[in-house]
Parts: sequence; structure tokens; C-alpha cells
Amino acid sequence: MTTANAEAEVRARLDAWAKATRAGDLDAIMANYAQDVRAFDAMGVLEFVGAAAYREHWKTCLSYMNGPMKFEMHKLEVAVQADIAFCHYLVNCGGTGLDGQEHDGWTRATVCLRKIGGKWLVVHEHFSAPFDPESGKAVFDLKPDSVTQASAA
Amino acid sequence: MTTANAEAEVRARLDAWAKATRAGDLDAIMANYAQDVRAFDAMGVLEFVGAAAYREHWKTCLSYMNGPMKFEMHKLEVAVQADIAFCHYLVNCGGTGLDGQEHDGWTRATVCLRKIGGKWLVVHEHFSAPFDPESGKAVFDLKPDSVTQASAA
Repeated sequence: MTTANAEAEVRARLDAWAKATRAGDLDAIMANYAQDVRAFDAMGVLEFVGAAAYREHWKTCLSYMNGPMKFEMHKLEVAVQADIAFCHYLVNCGGTGLDGQEHDGWTRATVCLRKIGGKWLVVHEHFSAPFDPESGKAVFDLKPDSVTQASAA
Repeated sequence: MTTANAEAEVRARLDAWAKATRAGDLDAIMANYAQDVRAFDAMGVLEFVGAAAYREHWKTCLSYMNGPMKFEMHKLEVAVQADIAFCHYLVNCGGTGLDGQEHDGWTRATVCLRKIGGKWLVVHEHFSAPFDPESGKAVFDLKPDSVTQASAA
């Protein structure tokens, strides 16, 4: 297995995860995680340890949505060596909430994987929105263009 | 170089970073990052790309503090293979703000490294606080004990 092949497998895993997320398919989402996954999600508590606890959280998250979700990865970077990998990207996600309104925003994702029993599985993920130090609120209306400007300032 | 030795080197890098952070030493902090570091920080914008942009952000963060910072890693997990590594942990950080008040809270960290020119350097990091979906505010008063309870629920 070359590193290029391994990277293609890791990218295929991320694609499978994103497809399951867009469809709101809980079983298909959970098929991407190792049993001992440790997740730092954007909302709720500090961490979820183990697939059972994380599944409950996912169920809650999906209950906020009304129909399919938008979930687009931007500026994905992937590093793979032997049986570990890490990935990071920006996420444009949204959909129709229970209020019937369209929601749309940008967050950040870091995903770490291990090859376990011949399959790449997510052992750690970290999703978040940055907060505004003035208001203390999580900010969802930042866009990559404004990021570029802020970084260049 | 065995994996155990490589893991010890990665842990030493995290310790050097934490020591520099506690001391508020900007040059010592920046010595831990690759030139092309991509950082998703807990506050501000979506991402900082490159050491120069991230240094400016660090300078701003340090200006909020009045004296040394507390920065403690808890539940650190490290994975290393060849020349890449990923690490994740919970952070108890605090210190005296410009208002003279003590601040203290818990956040989450994911740190990804590469061995570049014989040195392990941080190429990506992701710090965040989860937000409360009711208030939309970032939450800092969660503690690992409450995490354990939430995960077990």
C-alpha cells in the first residue's frame, strides 16, 4: 500500500461520512467510527468517549433537522503515514431546522483516523465554531473569504 | 527511532509549548510551529494560515493576560507513525485578566505534528469551547467530571 493509495482510502472514508451525514442516516454515520472514538463536538459537552455515547449525541443533533443536510468540505488537507492519518478542513453546513427556516454556517473540523482491521476508522474528531470574545457567542457567519482577509491583515 | 522514542519527542514538544504558553513567551511559543501552520483557534476567525498571521493572533491573546497563565493538559492521548503525529487532550487554563480577576475554564485541544528537518513541529492545531445550543454562547464552566457523567448517561 503506497501513501497515495492510503490517502485515497482516507479521503473515501471522509466522503462516506459526509454522504451519511447529508442523508441523516445514523447507522451509516456511526459505521465510520472506531468503538473507542473520542469526539470534541461543536455543541454540548466537552467530550464524548465511545461510540455508544456519541451515537446518542448524533441522534439528538439529527432531531434538530428537518430533511437532508448540506455538508460541504472546503480546503481539505490530509496527512497519512502507515496506519494513522489526520485531516482538517472548513465546513459549510446547513439545512432546514424544525422552525422551517434555512440555517447555514461555517465551522472547522479536524478528523484523526487509524487503520483498524484493514479499515480506516475515525478515532477522534473535533468540530467547532470560534467564539467572539466581546459577546461570548459562537460565530457562524464567518466565511473563508473573510478568513483570508483577516489572516493577511 | 522507535515509535516509543518518537512519542517521547512529541510529548516533549507539547511540554515545551505548554511551558512557553504559561510563561507568555511569544518567541518560545512560536518556536513550536511550522512556517505553514494552519490553526483553528477558540476565538476570533475561522482559521489562521501561516506562522506570521498566527503570531499576530497570539500577541493579541497574550495582551488579554496580566502575568503568568495556568495551562494544564488532562487526558492527553498521542498517536505517532513515521513522521506524523496527532494528539488530543482537555485543557484547564486560566490566569489573571486585565480586570484583575481570576479566570479559569476548560477547553479542548487537538494538535497535529510533522517531523521537519529532524524536529517535531506543530502543523495544525484546533482549540475550542463547545457552545450551548440554547444561548448560543461558548461554555467554559464544564469540567471533566460532568463530561464523564454526560458520556455515561
